[in-house]
Amino acid sequence: MSATTANIPMRRVGPIKIISQEFTGEISVPMATYETPLWPSTSRGAKISRLCDGINAVVVDDGMTRSVVVDATTAAKAYELVQNLKRRETEIAAIVAIASRFARFKEMHYQIIGSLVYIRLAIFSGDASGHNMATAAAEAMLNWVLQQYPDLHYVSISANFCTDKKASAVNAILGRGKYVVAEIIVPRAICIKELRSTPEKIVDLHIKKNLIGTMLAGGLRSANAHFANMLLAIFLATGQDAANIIEGSQGIVHAEVRGDALYFSVSLPNLIMGTVGNGKDLDFTQHNLTLLGCYANIEPGVGARRLAIITAATVLCGELSLLAAQTNPGELMRTHITMERSKCLT
Amino acid sequence: MSATTANIPMRRVGPIKIISQEFTGEISVPMATYETPLWPSTSRGAKISRLCDGINAVVVDDGMTRSVVVDATTAAKAYELVQNLKRRETEIAAIVAIASRFARFKEMHYQIIGSLVYIRLAIFSGDASGHNMATAAAEAMLNWVLQQYPDLHYVSISANFCTDKKASAVNAILGRGKYVVAEIIVPRAICIKELRSTPEKIVDLHIKKNLIGTMLAGGLRSANAHFANMLLAIFLATGQDAANIIEGSQGIVHAEVRGDALYFSVSLPNLIMGTVGNGKDLDFTQHNLTLLGCYANIEPGVGARRLAIITAATVLCGELSLLAAQTNPGELMRTHITMERSKCLT
Amino acid sequence: MSATTANIPMRRVGPIKIISQEFTGEISVPMATYETPLWPSTSRGAKISRLCDGINAVVVDDGMTRSVVVDATTAAKAYELVQNLKRRETEIAAIVAIASRFARFKEMHYQIIGSLVYIRLAIFSGDASGHNMATAAAEAMLNWVLQQYPDLHYVSISANFCTDKKASAVNAILGRGKYVVAEIIVPRAICIKELRSTPEKIVDLHIKKNLIGTMLAGGLRSANAHFANMLLAIFLATGQDAANIIEGSQGIVHAEVRGDALYFSVSLPNLIMGTVGNGKDLDFTQHNLTLLGCYANIEPGVGARRLAIITAATVLCGELSLLAAQTNPGELMRTHITMERSKCLT
Amino acid sequence: MSATTANIPMRRVGPIKIISQEFTGEISVPMATYETPLWPSTSRGAKISRLCDGINAVVVDDGMTRSVVVDATTAAKAYELVQNLKRRETEIAAIVAIASRFARFKEMHYQIIGSLVYIRLAIFSGDASGHNMATAAAEAMLNWVLQQYPDLHYVSISANFCTDKKASAVNAILGRGKYVVAEIIVPRAICIKELRSTPEKIVDLHIKKNLIGTMLAGGLRSANAHFANMLLAIFLATGQDAANIIEGSQGIVHAEVRGDALYFSVSLPNLIMGTVGNGKDLDFTQHNLTLLGCYANIEPGVGARRLAIITAATVLCGELSLLAAQTNPGELMRTHITMERSKCLT
Repeated sequence: MSATTANIPMRRVGPIKIISQEFTGEISVPMATYETPLWPSTSRGAKISRLCDGINAVVVDDGMTRSVVVDATTAAKAYELVQNLKRRETEIAAIVAIASRFARFKEMHYQIIGSLVYIRLAIFSGDASGHNMATAAAEAMLNWVLQQYPDLHYVSISANFCTDKKASAVNAILGRGKYVVAEIIVPRAICIKELRSTPEKIVDLHIKKNLIGTMLAGGLRSANAHFANMLLAIFLATGQDAANIIEGSQGIVHAEVRGDALYFSVSLPNLIMGTVGNGKDLDFTQHNLTLLGCYANIEPGVGARRLAIITAATVLCGELSLLAAQTNPGELMRTHITMERSKCLT
Repeated sequence: MSATTANIPMRRVGPIKIISQEFTGEISVPMATYETPLWPSTSRGAKISRLCDGINAVVVDDGMTRSVVVDATTAAKAYELVQNLKRRETEIAAIVAIASRFARFKEMHYQIIGSLVYIRLAIFSGDASGHNMATAAAEAMLNWVLQQYPDLHYVSISANFCTDKKASAVNAILGRGKYVVAEIIVPRAICIKELRSTPEKIVDLHIKKNLIGTMLAGGLRSANAHFANMLLAIFLATGQDAANIIEGSQGIVHAEVRGDALYFSVSLPNLIMGTVGNGKDLDFTQHNLTLLGCYANIEPGVGARRLAIITAATVLCGELSLLAAQTNPGELMRTHITMERSKCLT
Repeated sequence: MSATTANIPMRRVGPIKIISQEFTGEISVPMATYETPLWPSTSRGAKISRLCDGINAVVVDDGMTRSVVVDATTAAKAYELVQNLKRRETEIAAIVAIASRFARFKEMHYQIIGSLVYIRLAIFSGDASGHNMATAAAEAMLNWVLQQYPDLHYVSISANFCTDKKASAVNAILGRGKYVVAEIIVPRAICIKELRSTPEKIVDLHIKKNLIGTMLAGGLRSANAHFANMLLAIFLATGQDAANIIEGSQGIVHAEVRGDALYFSVSLPNLIMGTVGNGKDLDFTQHNLTLLGCYANIEPGVGARRLAIITAATVLCGELSLLAAQTNPGELMRTHITMERSKCLT
Repeated sequence: MSATTANIPMRRVGPIKIISQEFTGEISVPMATYETPLWPSTSRGAKISRLCDGINAVVVDDGMTRSVVVDATTAAKAYELVQNLKRRETEIAAIVAIASRFARFKEMHYQIIGSLVYIRLAIFSGDASGHNMATAAAEAMLNWVLQQYPDLHYVSISANFCTDKKASAVNAILGRGKYVVAEIIVPRAICIKELRSTPEKIVDLHIKKNLIGTMLAGGLRSANAHFANMLLAIFLATGQDAANIIEGSQGIVHAEVRGDALYFSVSLPNLIMGTVGNGKDLDFTQHNLTLLGCYANIEPGVGARRLAIITAATVLCGELSLLAAQTNPGELMRTHITMERSKCLT
């Protein structure tokens, strides 16, 4: 059968009022999803952003990784290899630069297990999410290593210490993708009127659900209600590899009552997004990226960072709206029923 | 802006030869993805399934969950509540049956933290993935509990001990969605000819990458290379809530050399899929579900289980193909470059 | 060299005022540790318990586990085995009863990975912590299973799905050891005077350190400052296998401001303790257990539950005291320096 | 009540044949434990080390950490602070050097959650395990930071991103304590004669128990049978803070068949041990440290590294012995029964 397309419902929600070092403005965000109640819910959060002083967002880190593994035969030689490589990072940076026009060496991390050496290479990947760029860089690095140290044995070009599309702790601790923090101050009056809740109720729910509840579930580096929903919808609408919502979902809400207002923030350490590469040259993804102001940028990385900021702000909108709803007994189901999900319920 | 659609490239891969208690046959599987090298890679695995005796698959568990949290004021009262509820599960089963025509009570689990009681309700949800059915059942249960025990305080209708779309351990340990195991025996000759590898090489890579590498990453209940990719593509093509690839990705490969062949299996404890509900009544998803033989089934649950089996078999195909490729230095990148990903590389 | 002894400094702290269904009273608790500042710190918490209405504690679950693993050759046969065993639990309960005079069957859980079947057996073990009793029961069960199903292959009598002395999620979710919750209400005036802190400060610190900080560390099912310290000291003083502080340490503080007071609780789902067995028949451990009222009890299990309650209350005392100290800049180090740790500092 | 002592049975096991850059020799190791079957089991492993070419061990990393947390009011200011601190690490290194005579600055890591900044400081702590040295250094650093950036708010001197005595992923990924790898080659004949097993059986059990079984348990960065037992016994015998077996237990076995022999290794990324400080100046701990050759060393850090190497080698002995036993149905229980544990069994 020849290729066709999956046509996923998409709507623009917002606009969201965003303030950042990179840009300030009100942005409407395309979201593609089968879970259409997500649109009005996120839009409610967007309205809050406009009624308040907007959502402040900042990119605090950036990079893409790939790990490889080799066998050094003995632990002593494994250690020696790591000591050697640490001294030769400048050479490796040059290898990376040759492997890809846009990749820049960032850093390396190592783990030794018996005689195995796991090497995690991090690069800056400009406007690309960087999966392939990191693989190309890692392969060049690996080939060079195997050539320089002929006693080593190849094990794998991809060693899961990267780690791609799997729940882990390493990505948030060492970094992978864009690390974005977004925050908002919501005065009590707006909480009450627009969210039918209070700062205290939202903070209390966040603690008992996002922090304690997730921990009881044996959660790993995550404290949120549904970051994944917003991420999936934006990733699909903008041509991202949506399997990366797995690490994307491992984000953290921090909320507290400040004075007579709600301080509400989302921290997303692993937003793996780009504005070039697979999926970004389709008509509708190009269109969406252009409308978001992320498509054609002069300086590499600017568009991708802007996209990550918009994404984090959208995640905040959707998360705040759902949490507020869940502070009210019955509201969650009523909303879903009203909004067309009723078919599969009874 | 009015609703439009995200049009994601989709192709049918396979057919995959599948053997199970439910059905036996060769099935082509629609996969929607921006990462188009996934198609030939999964197809290679499908070819293996046809050259061998097929992929055996079995659904070993099934259910959907939602958790709620209430405050009992003291730990002693929390304990008393749990003891009470354990004795009254028959009543709760009746509440669940009233809340939804298709839901059937499965089981409950409890956690007490200080005076807080987290209650995790599991139901059978027939052909629906069951998000909303479980929420409706949990809300009915919660309302009944609050009515029967008026000293309790409502905290949340959704308590993250469920847990939905977050990396956790609870889903695999207590169950959520369909738990499917798929396995294949690949004779050495086929490994060599079709996969350009050997049973020993694939097992060795699996151990050092999927088991050890993931553990080094601080992984949680997962040991695979890229289950997420296949899951995302099938979920999108069949109208699933693809944010559930997060728990879906927490699956486990087990591979070993048996006699002169490779035993290769994938165990997916958390496949959250259905054949009715949001997303399943679009033209293309209906079409896809029908071609898969999953759409119109007489007995509730049969279609959804069939879909889960097909999904697990597809995951096996894609996983086996990638692992085999990574046993060969250089093959991964060469393949990607050949297959059109080259644009973002250099 | 012949056996001798490691003589670890031990002191009785408290008394701690404890209220529970099992008993009510003021108990002094022996703690053996090289970290002697632990004594005055825990004693400060004990004083709080006496100034307030005491620490309420409750045992909410109890049991001991061992897992085994067998190979069923195919996933279908693995599934069939599990279905069979679920129907034959009465027979297995009888096997367990024969294997040990004191063991009583509690429940079983299963995991299927490829053709492997992991079986987790839980028993009630009376006054013993139950390591050996569970092993004996599991071995009897395993032998019976291998005999009843001769096609199965033995893999291991101990399969780490138990899991003993390793950080995991399974123990807290499915239960292992005693699950104890202890709580206290500390009026503001006592917080200020005795702890030099306030309810708000302690709650705030708990959230940012125990909940968020631990999560950032990639923590698993734990939210506390130093449960491990108190557990180690009591375990050593009462002849417990102190390697079980590993799962014991995976406990959770829940604290909040209630009215004008601090609600402070510790939930310890995995206290693996007993009053008979290895280590309990030494002179000093017998003496300690007797003073704690845990040694000679008529009904099996009563002494062990009492010991678990006392332990949880002690953990609460030490945790509350340290958290309060850390709300004050500088107090932590000053205390340590004053209290004799200064040698290794400068 | 005045202080007395807990007198824990202690015996010297071995000698173990150890080869390392630091030293080579046969060392007997004191182990204090209530679980006395540990002695003959570890001794069996020690015998293997002498029959083979010994255990090779290497320290691959070293350091001690403490984290603090401050509030920067906004995420943007949090980011600015981190950028600032990264540029001022030389100043912080000087602060650390003043805070403690023996501490040397190693590195810093940061996490931003909303407006909170978690700062993890790593130091070299010479012969001390470094808990207090790291706290002193962190406190000096924190005071300096609060002075330099007066807009910041103190939250905590200890932020659990350290993390001490809690199960986490951060310690193994970023380092905490000594990271030691020990390995041995055991020829088939010795496996058969001394361990009543084969290389294949031991590797197979390790994969299905330590790797897969632990993963099923929701384990975190650990793959071993009972590292904790050996660690506890040595920690108690040498005056260590044994609560640190929690992170110590998060170690990894790697085993494979190499030629006609078993390659068996243990990797322990978080051995928190020292030869000076609390607990090391008691008569018996001094005696033990002296016999181990760890007490009086000229160059700081040499003794502590030697102790860590001996510990890792001992862990290898105990782990290998137990795994071998579990490859034989029935041997585990028989051994325990024979060896005096029978009292609590029936």
